[in-house]
Amino acid sequence: MTADERHRERMQRKKALVDRKIARATIERGVLVVNTGNGKGKSSSGFGMLARSLGHGFQCGVVQFIKGSFSTGEEAFFRRFPDELDYHVMGEGYTWETQDKSRDIATAGKAWQVAAAMLADARYDFVLLDELNIALVKGYIDTAQVCEALKARPPQQHVVITGRGAPDMLVNLADTVTEMRVVKHAFQAGIKAQKGIEL
Amino acid sequence: MTADERHRERMQRKKALVDRKIARATIERGVLVVNTGNGKGKSSSGFGMLARSLGHGFQCGVVQFIKGSFSTGEEAFFRRFPDELDYHVMGEGYTWETQDKSRDIATAGKAWQVAAAMLADARYDFVLLDELNIALVKGYIDTAQVCEALKARPPQQHVVITGRGAPDMLVNLADTVTEMRVVKHAFQAGIKAQKGIEL
Repeated sequence: MTADERHRERMQRKKALVDRKIARATIERGVLVVNTGNGKGKSSSGFGMLARSLGHGFQCGVVQFIKGSFSTGEEAFFRRFPDELDYHVMGEGYTWETQDKSRDIATAGKAWQVAAAMLADARYDFVLLDELNIALVKGYIDTAQVCEALKARPPQQHVVITGRGAPDMLVNLADTVTEMRVVKHAFQAGIKAQKGIEL
Repeated sequence: MTADERHRERMQRKKALVDRKIARATIERGVLVVNTGNGKGKSSSGFGMLARSLGHGFQCGVVQFIKGSFSTGEEAFFRRFPDELDYHVMGEGYTWETQDKSRDIATAGKAWQVAAAMLADARYDFVLLDELNIALVKGYIDTAQVCEALKARPPQQHVVITGRGAPDMLVNLADTVTEMRVVKHAFQAGIKAQKGIEL
């Protein structure tokens, strides 16, 4: 048997294994995805799934719970699709930027009202709640209330929630959870946040 | 002092700390980002950064080194921007799908030629090499050669490389590296890959 034939045989066995696993995954429904951890990629992965969803002609909604002081590339880009996408930037910055806890709580509450309306509306196929976890960790929005709204949402609706420190209750409820772990970050080496990467 | 005043004072101290860190990060240049690990979000994060880059009016290039047997949402979506984005799907599927090692090596080599041309071309501000790591791990493309091309690229050019098992040589060269760690995945619970999320 040649090396190519051995490779082929090994890959045929692997394909049979993978095919069996795929055949066992038969459930079709909206999934709840949570991206957490301290590493890069939580929000950008959410925006990548948003692009996929738009590619399938889905009706989409985004609520950004934290707005940086910069104007971001994703906002500039996704604002181009007002028919397929409702894009809401509700936050006013990180809490050390605003320095006003009462206002932050009020802002988070308003953002949650917009998000809750999307979760109750079967017209939305895909909903991205960017940096919601930050507001949950600070207790500005009640995690139990969020979990109830997620459980009661339309069965085909996908939801992606991002931000550091996802609460256990949300992790338990979610279907897919990824921890983005920092191996290293350009910022640590003195490199500014770059357009197209962070901004 | 009221609770609100204490909050304000704490956040002022935090802001001073964050501002000092930001002030120290003064370098402006193209960064090399690597998304690796077994968790979800490596490719979708790359496509999110692509959206950001398009939002800034950047000229962008994508080479997908592995093409699934399904037509993906990201391809359908990003093909809408032929002027700003060169989108190449070069791979033919995972190696257990093709079962033909010689053909896989030839395909990977062709994909690398397209990628290398982008890395040598200062017109590209942002280049996404999706699932390149798979071809490096299998030895289908030489990692040292890839690292040389990355080092020699135009200084303002951002590059994002995704895929499991990023080789150490690439991790050492990169500016920002994230390990996407699986906490859990819907597939493990019998849920099919879903449009807008995986597809």
